[in-house]
Amino acid sequence: MRVLAFLDGTLANPEDPHIRVDDLSVQRGDGIFETVLVVGGEPRELRPHLDRLARSASMLDLPEPDDEAWQRTVRLVLDQWPSETECALKLVYTRGVDGTPDPTPTAFVLASPIGEKIIRARAEGVSVVTLDRGIDPGLAERAPWLLLGAKSLSYAVNMAAGREAARRGAEDVIFLATDGSVLEGPTSNVIVARGRTLYTPPATIGILPGTTQAAVFRGAERAGWTTKIEPLSVEDLHDNDGLFLASSVRKLTRVHTLDGEQLPDAGAVHAELAKAYEDVYA
Amino acid sequence: MRVLAFLDGTLANPEDPHIRVDDLSVQRGDGIFETVLVVGGEPRELRPHLDRLARSASMLDLPEPDDEAWQRTVRLVLDQWPSETECALKLVYTRGVDGTPDPTPTAFVLASPIGEKIIRARAEGVSVVTLDRGIDPGLAERAPWLLLGAKSLSYAVNMAAGREAARRGAEDVIFLATDGSVLEGPTSNVIVARGRTLYTPPATIGILPGTTQAAVFRGAERAGWTTKIEPLSVEDLHDNDGLFLASSVRKLTRVHTLDGEQLPDAGAVHAELAKAYEDVYA
Repeated sequence: MRVLAFLDGTLANPEDPHIRVDDLSVQRGDGIFETVLVVGGEPRELRPHLDRLARSASMLDLPEPDDEAWQRTVRLVLDQWPSETECALKLVYTRGVDGTPDPTPTAFVLASPIGEKIIRARAEGVSVVTLDRGIDPGLAERAPWLLLGAKSLSYAVNMAAGREAARRGAEDVIFLATDGSVLEGPTSNVIVARGRTLYTPPATIGILPGTTQAAVFRGAERAGWTTKIEPLSVEDLHDNDGLFLASSVRKLTRVHTLDGEQLPDAGAVHAELAKAYEDVYA
Repeated sequence: MRVLAFLDGTLANPEDPHIRVDDLSVQRGDGIFETVLVVGGEPRELRPHLDRLARSASMLDLPEPDDEAWQRTVRLVLDQWPSETECALKLVYTRGVDGTPDPTPTAFVLASPIGEKIIRARAEGVSVVTLDRGIDPGLAERAPWLLLGAKSLSYAVNMAAGREAARRGAEDVIFLATDGSVLEGPTSNVIVARGRTLYTPPATIGILPGTTQAAVFRGAERAGWTTKIEPLSVEDLHDNDGLFLASSVRKLTRVHTLDGEQLPDAGAVHAELAKAYEDVYA
């Protein structure tokens, strides 16, 4: 089961075609998106997701998203979804149809069930490889036209990285900068635990500010942890008491294997942080 | 007027929606494309375009394109197009619908008229700014998962570069590598003329192998020019007898202004090379 609604309040059948071939999403990957987890009928971190959508829109010079319309559309979709079942909401906002001077963005919300792969990753963790992203940590601020840190629809590289991971027998990726700085996963943020402190790299190095990472940090702080946003090096991926990927739908996922090497069991740390994260919504 | 046909041989109205919201082009910019110029009813460089489509497909692990079906579909579209009017053919090949294990690619050909901006660029040339692309020339070979040199649908950065050019009062961009090497334009290849020799950078540095650049080189060689594929530096953009962008629809376009500085008039060189290029199809 899936539920689709457009931003004008129209519900539609997701199996039918709704997008023109000359929509700039199809033609150029030109648009932005957010993925929101819904538990018990409630979208998690909707406010930060909508803030980040507005931030991405600004980075891509898209018209400012109509915040209330997005909230209404999310509610409309969730009214059709059984609240006892988790779902993933995808909010998509494209530049609209090519060839018009001021195109109207195409905008929709699509609710989908949580896939088996995700449920397995939540329970068992993932095997990860590090891949060179080929950029230096100063690039994002120097070259805003590269859209580093914008959640654009141009995710072909993120998908290709996932296939490279599979070729190497792994399930996910952590991108490294040319100087060995830790960046992010193709669809996640990196969190390192050391003692009672959590670390994640700053968004200024050209990565997405994480909504789930921020929620985990909020929960961890309430549970007595210290949190630090500071650059991490590839050594920090090995020298820690727990390595995690944070993403909306997979939540806080353990990394059990890094570049083919099994990491020490961080099950207890994961359990405590996962509880702290869930407590944010209790 | 526009003409649309899908790879299965179905003609369709381009004003109608044909793409599902969960097509991976819409969701992830996950697919590839080619743009082909058609003059007098004949697609130019169709063979190199289809070869490059197959190369991009391979780089993105997409199923090998059905070459004959593409040729048939191009012919079908052109049968509906008045041969006395030039058009641009866009060949789009997406990964298909999300969530299916082996999705069938979505594939279509769309013919559109040549826009006024393009006709003006052909006649008057363009003003260009150089922009940092933030990568080194060795990256493409080191990190194939970054899809450098694949013509993917994830073109949000290419479009953003165009907007940055407009902010700087220019119309187009030449991307530079971190070491000052010349890469390419967001939708073109760079050609430098010096004496009776043409230069363009090698595709191995992470750029698209140019179909129009190759045609210009072929034509120029027949007209007695020497051609060289070798690395170019930012100094070469200034120290030359003509700087050009080559792209299918704009053909060989003069750069008349670079980073705000008017370049010496290269009208005579442009006219000679433009003729040599047209003679390829005479």
